[in-house]
Amino acid sequence: MPLELIQQAKVANGWHKRYKHQSSSVNGEMTFAIFLPPNANQEHPVPVLYWLSGLTCTDENFMQKAAAFSTAAELGIAIVAPDTSPRGEDVANDDGYDLGQGAGFYVNATQAPWNKHYQMLDYIVQELPELIAANFPVSQAKSIAGHSMGGHGALTIGIKHADGYRSISAFSPIANPMHCPWGQKAFNAYLGSDKSQWRQYDASELLSQCQATLPILIDQGDQDDFLAEQLKPDTLIAAAANLTSPFELRMQPGYDHSYFFISTFIADHLRFHGQYLV
Amino acid sequence: MPLELIQQAKVANGWHKRYKHQSSSVNGEMTFAIFLPPNANQEHPVPVLYWLSGLTCTDENFMQKAAAFSTAAELGIAIVAPDTSPRGEDVANDDGYDLGQGAGFYVNATQAPWNKHYQMLDYIVQELPELIAANFPVSQAKSIAGHSMGGHGALTIGIKHADGYRSISAFSPIANPMHCPWGQKAFNAYLGSDKSQWRQYDASELLSQCQATLPILIDQGDQDDFLAEQLKPDTLIAAAANLTSPFELRMQPGYDHSYFFISTFIADHLRFHGQYLV
Repeated sequence: MPLELIQQAKVANGWHKRYKHQSSSVNGEMTFAIFLPPNANQEHPVPVLYWLSGLTCTDENFMQKAAAFSTAAELGIAIVAPDTSPRGEDVANDDGYDLGQGAGFYVNATQAPWNKHYQMLDYIVQELPELIAANFPVSQAKSIAGHSMGGHGALTIGIKHADGYRSISAFSPIANPMHCPWGQKAFNAYLGSDKSQWRQYDASELLSQCQATLPILIDQGDQDDFLAEQLKPDTLIAAAANLTSPFELRMQPGYDHSYFFISTFIADHLRFHGQYLV
Repeated sequence: MPLELIQQAKVANGWHKRYKHQSSSVNGEMTFAIFLPPNANQEHPVPVLYWLSGLTCTDENFMQKAAAFSTAAELGIAIVAPDTSPRGEDVANDDGYDLGQGAGFYVNATQAPWNKHYQMLDYIVQELPELIAANFPVSQAKSIAGHSMGGHGALTIGIKHADGYRSISAFSPIANPMHCPWGQKAFNAYLGSDKSQWRQYDASELLSQCQATLPILIDQGDQDDFLAEQLKPDTLIAAAANLTSPFELRMQPGYDHSYFFISTFIADHLRFHGQYLV
């Protein structure tokens, strides 16, 4: 399927480009953005960091607000930011900001009406990387990162498909969605009421059984309004107790849940991934 | 008049805060944002860079998209970003994006109905700096910068009030508004048809007669869609021919009019101002 370029701008001596395309995974149109660093070309393919955004976001939030480009350009890392769900009039939706369009939770839905389009896991793990490899000068090296719902996505996808990614990082991830209101609402809708089906999408559950060697960096603001009720980083720290690979969760004093927080530490995350993407 | 805090977030180890307040200059409510670097306190007041935004912008665009905070924190420079006009149901407006609310052009309007509220020159030059000095740990040292309509504002205000500012910079300024559609529409409405009243707000006119010693840095993308019709940097270069102080206008190949362009070069601008704000 061809990519349709919908916007482009030179930035940090590289390029930011937005595309839409027909997705076989989600059975409809998807949008993504890519940052290509200045050194990316056919003779010099670059590694890719996949960035998964949070609730209500599109492909644009990270690219406009994260202040990531100068460091990504310096390190020679491409960044791909997909939309957070399928969209459109024929795509199931909900009145809440935390379910439906803008809130795909990076799962493959099994329940009607969601299962017709909400196959975000397949899109992120399989279809999108194939599309990126076929259309841009990128290498096989991939890492994954995200924020909030996207932090949940980065952790669960990175752990479950550890052979596909070199490293994982997250800002303010939903660390134990089986036991928080956002996660329970989404999993009930997308996966049904059988909680045995939820475990494969819970970062704390997956991490406690993780055998892979996969470096993980997490930043969490201690003034985040969602910290205690929705994010539950302590559960993730406990689940990481037996890991053999590097795991660091940094509580950042004074910071909240916003892109002001992300923009403060994104350079650290890019340098973290850069160690493993060479 | 008291300031009302409407939002705050820690960023780059400093603070981003938004305030609204009753403005005597514009005879109504105004909103501004401030970035305070981590070293700002009563024992260590910091210099201020005033940032004037372009058409359609509010106080938020620069703060969310410019990627300025890490460098401003490092240099110890506060940044103040006012809204681009008065706003509200009782404030005159226009159906176009280039006149009325969001398009104050940093002038003191003399024509009805605009003159009731559109006194943005007084607000930027007088009221806002007094408010900042009274409420935040800042020194007397000020510089001014802006984008597009705000580049026009930074140049005209900086040149006309050269004793108030240490340095000026601009991205993609409207350099000769008397002779471009955006400027002519705004000046006709705000200042009337007598073009002798327009000269005091035209950067090229002012610069050609400038006796002050005032360093100026300008960046302009050569793929800017507004370059030939609206921005006219060549007129400004010609007007700068007899300046005795540093003047540099850099044509940046491949860049457009967006915040992707601004975010690429904002660190250069902050370091430029930093030389004069010590």
